[in-house]
Amino acid sequence: MNEENIYANLTQLGGESKLPTSPEEAVLERVRNPQQGTGYLVRFTAPEFTSLCPITGQPDFAHLMIDYVPGDWLVESKSLKLFLGSFRNHGAFHEDCTVSIGKKLEEFLKPQWLRIGGYWYPRGGIPIDVFYQSGPAPAGVWIPEQGVPPYRGRG
Amino acid sequence: MNEENIYANLTQLGGESKLPTSPEEAVLERVRNPQQGTGYLVRFTAPEFTSLCPITGQPDFAHLMIDYVPGDWLVESKSLKLFLGSFRNHGAFHEDCTVSIGKKLEEFLKPQWLRIGGYWYPRGGIPIDVFYQSGPAPAGVWIPEQGVPPYRGRG
Amino acid sequence: MNEENIYANLTQLGGESKLPTSPEEAVLERVRNPQQGTGYLVRFTAPEFTSLCPITGQPDFAHLMIDYVPGDWLVESKSLKLFLGSFRNHGAFHEDCTVSIGKKLEEFLKPQWLRIGGYWYPRGGIPIDVFYQSGPAPAGVWIPEQGVPPYRGRG
Amino acid sequence: MNEENIYANLTQLGGESKLPTSPEEAVLERVRNPQQGTGYLVRFTAPEFTSLCPITGQPDFAHLMIDYVPGDWLVESKSLKLFLGSFRNHGAFHEDCTVSIGKKLEEFLKPQWLRIGGYWYPRGGIPIDVFYQSGPAPAGVWIPEQGVPPYRGRG
Amino acid sequence: MNEENIYANLTQLGGESKLPTSPEEAVLERVRNPQQGTGYLVRFTAPEFTSLCPITGQPDFAHLMIDYVPGDWLVESKSLKLFLGSFRNHGAFHEDCTVSIGKKLEEFLKPQWLRIGGYWYPRGGIPIDVFYQSGPAPAGVWIPEQGVPPYRGRG
Amino acid sequence: MNEENIYANLTQLGGESKLPTSPEEAVLERVRNPQQGTGYLVRFTAPEFTSLCPITGQPDFAHLMIDYVPGDWLVESKSLKLFLGSFRNHGAFHEDCTVSIGKKLEEFLKPQWLRIGGYWYPRGGIPIDVFYQSGPAPAGVWIPEQGVPPYRGRG
Amino acid sequence: MNEENIYANLTQLGGESKLPTSPEEAVLERVRNPQQGTGYLVRFTAPEFTSLCPITGQPDFAHLMIDYVPGDWLVESKSLKLFLGSFRNHGAFHEDCTVSIGKKLEEFLKPQWLRIGGYWYPRGGIPIDVFYQSGPAPAGVWIPEQGVPPYRGRG
Amino acid sequence: MNEENIYANLTQLGGESKLPTSPEEAVLERVRNPQQGTGYLVRFTAPEFTSLCPITGQPDFAHLMIDYVPGDWLVESKSLKLFLGSFRNHGAFHEDCTVSIGKKLEEFLKPQWLRIGGYWYPRGGIPIDVFYQSGPAPAGVWIPEQGVPPYRGRG
Amino acid sequence: MNEENIYANLTQLGGESKLPTSPEEAVLERVRNPQQGTGYLVRFTAPEFTSLCPITGQPDFAHLMIDYVPGDWLVESKSLKLFLGSFRNHGAFHEDCTVSIGKKLEEFLKPQWLRIGGYWYPRGGIPIDVFYQSGPAPAGVWIPEQGVPPYRGRG
Amino acid sequence: MNEENIYANLTQLGGESKLPTSPEEAVLERVRNPQQGTGYLVRFTAPEFTSLCPITGQPDFAHLMIDYVPGDWLVESKSLKLFLGSFRNHGAFHEDCTVSIGKKLEEFLKPQWLRIGGYWYPRGGIPIDVFYQSGPAPAGVWIPEQGVPPYRGRG
Ligand SMILES: [Ca+2]
Ligand SMILES: [Ca+2]
Ligand SMILES: [Ca+2]
Ligand SMILES: [Ca+2]
Ligand SMILES: [Ca+2]
Ligand SMILES: [Ca+2]
Ligand SMILES: [Ca+2]
Ligand SMILES: [Ca+2]
Ligand SMILES: [Ca+2]
Ligand SMILES: [Ca+2]
Ligand SMILES: [Ca+2]
Ligand SMILES: [Ca+2]
Ligand SMILES: [Ca+2]
Ligand SMILES: [Ca+2]
Ligand SMILES: [Ca+2]
Ligand SMILES: [Ca+2]
Repeated sequence: MNEENIYANLTQLGGESKLPTSPEEAVLERVRNPQQGTGYLVRFTAPEFTSLCPITGQPDFAHLMIDYVPGDWLVESKSLKLFLGSFRNHGAFHEDCTVSIGKKLEEFLKPQWLRIGGYWYPRGGIPIDVFYQSGPAPAGVWIPEQGVPPYRGRG
Repeated sequence: MNEENIYANLTQLGGESKLPTSPEEAVLERVRNPQQGTGYLVRFTAPEFTSLCPITGQPDFAHLMIDYVPGDWLVESKSLKLFLGSFRNHGAFHEDCTVSIGKKLEEFLKPQWLRIGGYWYPRGGIPIDVFYQSGPAPAGVWIPEQGVPPYRGRG
Repeated sequence: MNEENIYANLTQLGGESKLPTSPEEAVLERVRNPQQGTGYLVRFTAPEFTSLCPITGQPDFAHLMIDYVPGDWLVESKSLKLFLGSFRNHGAFHEDCTVSIGKKLEEFLKPQWLRIGGYWYPRGGIPIDVFYQSGPAPAGVWIPEQGVPPYRGRG
Repeated sequence: MNEENIYANLTQLGGESKLPTSPEEAVLERVRNPQQGTGYLVRFTAPEFTSLCPITGQPDFAHLMIDYVPGDWLVESKSLKLFLGSFRNHGAFHEDCTVSIGKKLEEFLKPQWLRIGGYWYPRGGIPIDVFYQSGPAPAGVWIPEQGVPPYRGRG
Repeated sequence: MNEENIYANLTQLGGESKLPTSPEEAVLERVRNPQQGTGYLVRFTAPEFTSLCPITGQPDFAHLMIDYVPGDWLVESKSLKLFLGSFRNHGAFHEDCTVSIGKKLEEFLKPQWLRIGGYWYPRGGIPIDVFYQSGPAPAGVWIPEQGVPPYRGRG
Repeated sequence: MNEENIYANLTQLGGESKLPTSPEEAVLERVRNPQQGTGYLVRFTAPEFTSLCPITGQPDFAHLMIDYVPGDWLVESKSLKLFLGSFRNHGAFHEDCTVSIGKKLEEFLKPQWLRIGGYWYPRGGIPIDVFYQSGPAPAGVWIPEQGVPPYRGRG
Repeated sequence: MNEENIYANLTQLGGESKLPTSPEEAVLERVRNPQQGTGYLVRFTAPEFTSLCPITGQPDFAHLMIDYVPGDWLVESKSLKLFLGSFRNHGAFHEDCTVSIGKKLEEFLKPQWLRIGGYWYPRGGIPIDVFYQSGPAPAGVWIPEQGVPPYRGRG
Repeated sequence: MNEENIYANLTQLGGESKLPTSPEEAVLERVRNPQQGTGYLVRFTAPEFTSLCPITGQPDFAHLMIDYVPGDWLVESKSLKLFLGSFRNHGAFHEDCTVSIGKKLEEFLKPQWLRIGGYWYPRGGIPIDVFYQSGPAPAGVWIPEQGVPPYRGRG
Repeated sequence: MNEENIYANLTQLGGESKLPTSPEEAVLERVRNPQQGTGYLVRFTAPEFTSLCPITGQPDFAHLMIDYVPGDWLVESKSLKLFLGSFRNHGAFHEDCTVSIGKKLEEFLKPQWLRIGGYWYPRGGIPIDVFYQSGPAPAGVWIPEQGVPPYRGRG
Repeated sequence: MNEENIYANLTQLGGESKLPTSPEEAVLERVRNPQQGTGYLVRFTAPEFTSLCPITGQPDFAHLMIDYVPGDWLVESKSLKLFLGSFRNHGAFHEDCTVSIGKKLEEFLKPQWLRIGGYWYPRGGIPIDVFYQSGPAPAGVWIPEQGVPPYRGRG
């Protein structure tokens, strides 16, 4: 198994990196896909996403799930975590924010395929979920459901 | 089993009663406890309670659970349903509303014991639950937990 | 283990018994407690109880759970099943019916202790649960919660 | 991310809007889709829908889920909430009401695709669910299951 | 929304109807589909179905779910409830009974499509489920899974 | 409904049959399919299957689910139960045993289609599941998922 | 019900308040307990709490639940929400932070009793929960379990 | 930690032991409690218990949970497994069998305290649970609930 | 059933094998597929997988699920367990490790089809799942979902 | 809030520490309790504990939960994680190992009270749980249940 040297050029792994203050400041990093030529799915689950409402400045929260079929690159997971953390004090609407994160990763990783599910916490009693994918799922790759249970209110 | 004539004086059971327009207009009814002298618990679960916020006029929703140990009386369940339905266009704060419903039933039914759990739907991301009981639970009567699961947000 | 001859006097076990047409016609049977002098709990779960509403004649349904600490007798389980089945075409209110079944078993089995939980299906959106026990639970006997989850409406 | 000015023409966002007294009085609002040309799904979950039975005047309750793939427009979420709230004192049958809400949104938003699931609370022990979509789901867009668990009665 | 007069010819809605004593005696009723020309799904969940075993006379229980895509007609829900209730003292095998109910509704409602899932309670430790549909699901109509969890035994 | 005489030739239904001592000794029985010409699915869930490990002689346990679309025959359920019970003292490997049971039923019932899921209890911490079907599912017949949740280890 | 004027002196309710930049800047507000002299429990569930790690500056997340039995005062829920939101960019250790929030509310509300449960998201695979109460629960007041399920890892 | 030599006298650990043909033939083994003088609880969960009905010879199944506070001895777990497996072809009633297993272990281990919960699979639709303990739980030892969820029938 | 002699050439089954110290040292074994020519699925669930992080040396944990449709061979389950156990002190990244295990089995077993799901425990709050399959699932073979629920954080 | 300098003397926090090769080599660290004089509970959940069987050398797995009421000290969480990780290649029996970890922490932290629950993965189908506490829970401190659901086998 040929994993050992693909992480050589990374700058954030190891030491304690500071949380970037905005998505623009965040630096996504990538490593060579050690299983290039193989169609497989990688899933990240980020139950701790938070941003600010651009109108009221109040915090919003989301549970994000990101699925992708790598092409030449894997996203380095610590840089992804810092990128997601960089929305902490950034204003963003639910629909646009979710799709934008998906497209940003799509552009950076040039995966065979990518999708993102944004499960936002309720505001005014009616939560919003947003689902985006880069195109039809590639034939022959296994893409399980994300399976997040629906919101139920109380009781 | 001696049940057949305790419902003779009821006015709302049978025909289709109109929803009362306010809690004051609603008429609670009661029947003789057919198991008088026995300590037992009756539980009503009302997952469809709704009232209005007295400040904004927006609707609020709650899942209510009412437990009582009857004394001389049982509440007639259709009149209870109409009483709870009468809050539909009534302004009420969560804490006061829940406790007031409990006290109203306590006064009317003179039960050996009564409690109410109000599980309100989230507003601003932080739901409120309110728990009231008329006093310590009577010794020797079986009082199971209400067991409503805690609110979890999304994801 | 001394179990083999306690079932000698039973009349319903073995052949296919007909469903009794009323609770009065049903014949409860009991066998000697093979562990007399020992405090232990027996629990029956009957998710298929049904009776009729004495006012409208419509069917009612309940999930019943019966717990008892035997004295000299165990209830024979097939006769219990037939007894519960005998309410199929019998009119009965929720509160009285649940408590009456508990008391009938109490009288017949003279257990050290008994309780019954009646979890009735919703009518008009507000289900009723009824909880009865014969007295305080005997000290030193293990009495686990019945643990039926609360009714949730839809969603 | 280009989100900041699409909300400029809204009239209800910000101040406290009154609940409209009927669906006809309610004013749906829409904003430009900031991700136009991209196929993605937006899901609203409204566990607090309530209307009146047109025959008996009794309240009905439903858990609604609305999925749509935006075209040129996004629905503004506060106006959607007020629109759904406007059914509070309006008479409506389950099947027709659910489909009508779907069609009203379809007409107003001209989405690429829309569906609505209406999960109504039980009446008479038998709940009704209603499922409507505007046509076959667009190819290549990710459409997860709504995943509402089936009704189970009690126990 | 054009719902108000489609219920004019019904005979059972309103007053308290008696439970029919057999499926033959039961009278299904139907109303004009107010959304004719639209493909949508209606789901009934009946967790309280009960019939008798034709060989032993013992009660059987089932959780039934009925899905249909209406054509010209909707089934009137109270008449459906009475029809299902009419099996209370009727002998019926699991496989045949489930399919027969589906076919009876198919014949009466002439829907675009119909299916029924019968989830029967365990007898002898091995429950039977029966699944029937009138044909392939119509293209472009949304048909969610029924989602009843499988039987698990104890523990 | 034409069910009453299809059970006339059965030998095991009614009296208390002895558990067969091996699969070879067990006698499967079948009855005429009362809904011949109709494509529908019958599901048996057997959470109590047990056999012996052919190498160590230790007991193995499985939760079996059998789905089939009947042709001319239905399996008689008591004979199926006795057939499954006959593996109690029989040595069998997980993969072969599960598939063999499926094939035996396939041969005997000549169904339009059959599948079996064998969910075996963990040995050495790693449970085995085995899934077999007789061929592609017949078009137009409704085949719901078996939906057994995955093994989770502890905690 | 005497609720209408207890909110007169509030400064944050109504308009859109800005998120305070630190706990010190946040202003908790309180209203007269409209049910003074009655022992009842109020529960807030805050699944969206977030602060920063004082050593690494990385975000931490917690699900907080606060229970209290009011004395003369109720906490105004919007000010509580802003107070909790003010930890967003504040450094805090898990144990100290949870207990400090509890004590701050205790000091401000002078309740009959208060407790807080802090359920922190995993770091390094081992989550921390912190449980604090102001003293023994007052006799005769109903204090249900918070009921948050334990962390389970994956699978 | 002083664990290494307490297993020296065991006869069954290591090689593949044959399943004993009856409870009488089974040999329970015990080892010195390495934490003597400390009150702690050991719990065994046996989801694979099976015996025969002494009247019909049909297999019965149970999920057993055994809790004990050791005195001088721990039960050796492989011998416990073989002891439980030895009921495979043994006739036993539910109540007596569960209590007898508890008493047998009590006699053999002379624990400070012991309890057993027997959760039997349904027969005739009504499962039996049996709960026995050797006496009041010792003060100061932690005894968590067994927490087996109640039987729910189908649906 | 023709199972008995296919295990004749195995070297690890029976005695207590030592855990191999690396994946290279581990010896996978295989037996003739006793149901050759039949398309069926075998699933292994391994909730106890652990390896080391190649950068920090800290332990990582995963819940693995492996599905395959056998060709000429079945994997011998004990050798699979030892192979998985051999990663205990081996450095491996999540994505590469999961895919490599899948490919190793694919190469060794030459199955008709194989897939692996790796559900890794959270590190830094964001768990990774990895899903690989050898190609499109073979037509006509039954491939149920793995159904592992998504990670939920806390609360 | 007075948290900032209590971490000054720690040696392992910050850099990447190596996993200690045995429990003896591991160095637990502690910090001053910043809330001294206050009774509160701290809970650690470690779903990733693994050790070796001292007889067979095979890996064992456990889900550990540790609750304590601090005295003068808090355990530093990274050192706790390394301590637990140090059992990775250490032989340990379930009962003794669980209790020993509890006592080691008790001795080191001198808490007001401590308990540990060890939920071990099944071996031979019968998992063992071990529960230890240092003495009766201190009066007036809130001690919630650990709430780990019981093992269920398969299906
Ligand atoms: Ca799939
Ligand atoms: Ca209790
Ligand atoms: Ca959450
Ligand atoms: Ca208890
Ligand atoms: Ca609900
Ligand atoms: Ca899908
Ligand atoms: Ca049920
Ligand atoms: Ca679907
Ligand atoms: Ca089970
Ligand atoms: Ca399907
Ligand atoms: Ca309580
Ligand atoms: Ca786990
Ligand atoms: Ca306890
Ligand atoms: Ca499938
Ligand atoms: Ca407690
Ligand atoms: Ca399990």
